[in-house]
This record gives sequence, C-alpha cells and structure tokens, in this order.
Amino acid sequence: MSNAKKTDLRIQLTRKLIWNALLDLMEDREFESLTVKEICDQAMVHRTTFYKHFEDKYQLLSYGLDEIRELLDQQNSKDRFFHPIQTLESIGHLRLFKIIWKSEKKNNFFSGILQNKAEDALKKELHSIETLMGKSVVPIDVITAFISGAVSSLVVYWLENHEKINAKELDDYMNLMINKEVLFSGKIQP
Amino acid sequence: MSNAKKTDLRIQLTRKLIWNALLDLMEDREFESLTVKEICDQAMVHRTTFYKHFEDKYQLLSYGLDEIRELLDQQNSKDRFFHPIQTLESIGHLRLFKIIWKSEKKNNFFSGILQNKAEDALKKELHSIETLMGKSVVPIDVITAFISGAVSSLVVYWLENHEKINAKELDDYMNLMINKEVLFSGKIQP
Repeated sequence: MSNAKKTDLRIQLTRKLIWNALLDLMEDREFESLTVKEICDQAMVHRTTFYKHFEDKYQLLSYGLDEIRELLDQQNSKDRFFHPIQTLESIGHLRLFKIIWKSEKKNNFFSGILQNKAEDALKKELHSIETLMGKSVVPIDVITAFISGAVSSLVVYWLENHEKINAKELDDYMNLMINKEVLFSGKIQP
Repeated sequence: MSNAKKTDLRIQLTRKLIWNALLDLMEDREFESLTVKEICDQAMVHRTTFYKHFEDKYQLLSYGLDEIRELLDQQNSKDRFFHPIQTLESIGHLRLFKIIWKSEKKNNFFSGILQNKAEDALKKELHSIETLMGKSVVPIDVITAFISGAVSSLVVYWLENHEKINAKELDDYMNLMINKEVLFSGKIQP
C-alpha cells in the first residue's frame, strides 16, 4: 500500500471512530445536548484530532448522514422503489436508524399522542372488519402501520397545500391508492 | 341560565383563553421553552387563575389534546377510516395541527434530511414511470406523500419488530397494499 493510501485509510478510520462515538452517546442522550469534548472522550481522541476532521458536531453529523445517502444512491432504483425495507437492510446501519428514530420519537410528543390514538382506532376498526370478512392477507399490525403512515403524510401534505387541493380530493386519492381488494378480499367498499 | 351553568361556562371560557394563548406562543416558540408566566401574560390572566385550572403547562397541553381526541372520537368510525382528511377538516383546529406539525418538523432534523432525500428519489422515479406509461390518475406529489409516509411508518415498524418479521415479508406486504393498477394503469409490476 502506498503512503498516500495509508494516510487516506487512517483518515477514514479516525472519522468512523468519531462517528461511532457520537452514535454511542446518542443511545442515551440527545444530539443537541452533546459537546465536542464528550464526543472526543467517548472516541478516546484528542480535541485537536476532532477539529482536524470536523468543524463542529453538526459537520460530524452531516458526514455520517452523507455516508448513508451515498449508500442509498448506489442502490438500484427499482429495488429502492419496490423493496424499500430490504434496501435499507442491505446497506446496514440498522443501529443508526434505530437511534435516529428513538431520539425523534421523544421529540414527537404531540403527534405521537395523536398518532397512537389514531392507530388504536384504526386497529379496532380493522379487527371488526376481520370479524365480518375473515382474516386479512396482511397482518393487521402491518396494515395499521402502512395506513397510519400514509395518512399522516397526506395530512401534512394537506396542511401545506390546502389552498390548491381540498380534503375530499385527497381522501378520494387515498382510497384509490390503497389496495382494498387485497386487504379485505374485495368485500368492503367506502 | 342557572348560576351553576354560568360558572361552568366561565370555566370553559377561561380554559379556552389560556389554551389559545399557548397556541399563539407556539407559533414562534417551542413548547419546552415556554413558562407558565409567559402563557399567563399572553392570555392576560393572573398566575393564580392559571393554577386554579391547570397544575402546569403539561396539564394544559393534555387538556387541549383531549379536546381534539374527544372530537375525533365523536366522528363516525367509517368516515374516519375512509375519509380521514375530511374528518380532520370537519373538526376544525387546523391551526393547532399546523403548529404541531411545524414544531415537530424542526425537531425531526435527521429523518427530515433522509425523508427529503427519499421523496426526491421517489418523485424522480414516478416521473420516469409517467413518461413511459402516461399520466397517472393521482398527482405525483400525492403519490409521493402517500408512499413515503407509508414506507417510513413500515420502516419504524420493522425497526421495532425485526425479530418477528423480516424485510422481505414487509416489502411484499407493502407491494400488496399499494394499488398499482390505479397508479400506473396496471402496466408496471415489480
């Protein structure tokens, strides 16, 4: 290996080390509350080393997220579209996603409460439909996750665009996009 | 009106007044950073009045959210299921939802970046499908909101349950639940 390549590898390793220290700390603490000193202590590197590689903790964070984005960009686009979860699994970094999701869940205090409420109502609804129609092909928990996510996202879209699209149009589109035939053997209609 | 009823009405009005003051403040500030004193100043009520009705700002918040939940509970469950956005519109409180969504968007720093990235990729994908297949029944922005929300939610479900359900199963379920025939005239298949 050439000296230049060795140096390059050492740079990569140091950055990874610091990035992993950040993830370690984020298991229990919020990103905002962390200091560069704490990240250095966790990584067992000197502060001057940190500043050789990153301006601050925000730059460290975008370094880490850029890595993930690059990995996602490299995936086949058809795969990404039809197999989003397998694609996510294949690039690894499950730990990062868990940490991100955990830290944001804490912050999503309001919509968390409302979403739980909506999910409970939806689950109840789906169970009573199942009693009438027989077991669904897709487990009810999965239908609930799918529909509640899709609807929350459409609600946000509506909040941003209600001047140009009305609630009824969006509900109609939503009903078109959900494959009810598969979910309930085509027996239930709005 | 009886004296008891008048008192009851006055209590309701005071609570609404304090709740609206909280919403006013949350237009620009984060909930966590607000003090009871600031809420009282905004509502132009004395602190003792506040504490006659609420223990602290958290109890004020759950009072407000409970009101919304009650309104949602009163809606016809079939309506809620098939017309979620019209249901939300019919109960009013658009302002509250906007504030909640705005305040959480600020917090969702990480997944915000990743989600934007995913939405951009999805939109590009859908545009190239449209070029091949002709215009979709549902506008691409709406499809993007729907699918990205559904997939994000399934990713969270997967992060929580990957011991009992694998990525391939979830992707397969997702593909079943999306009505591709409507979206792309049934011409595209995974």
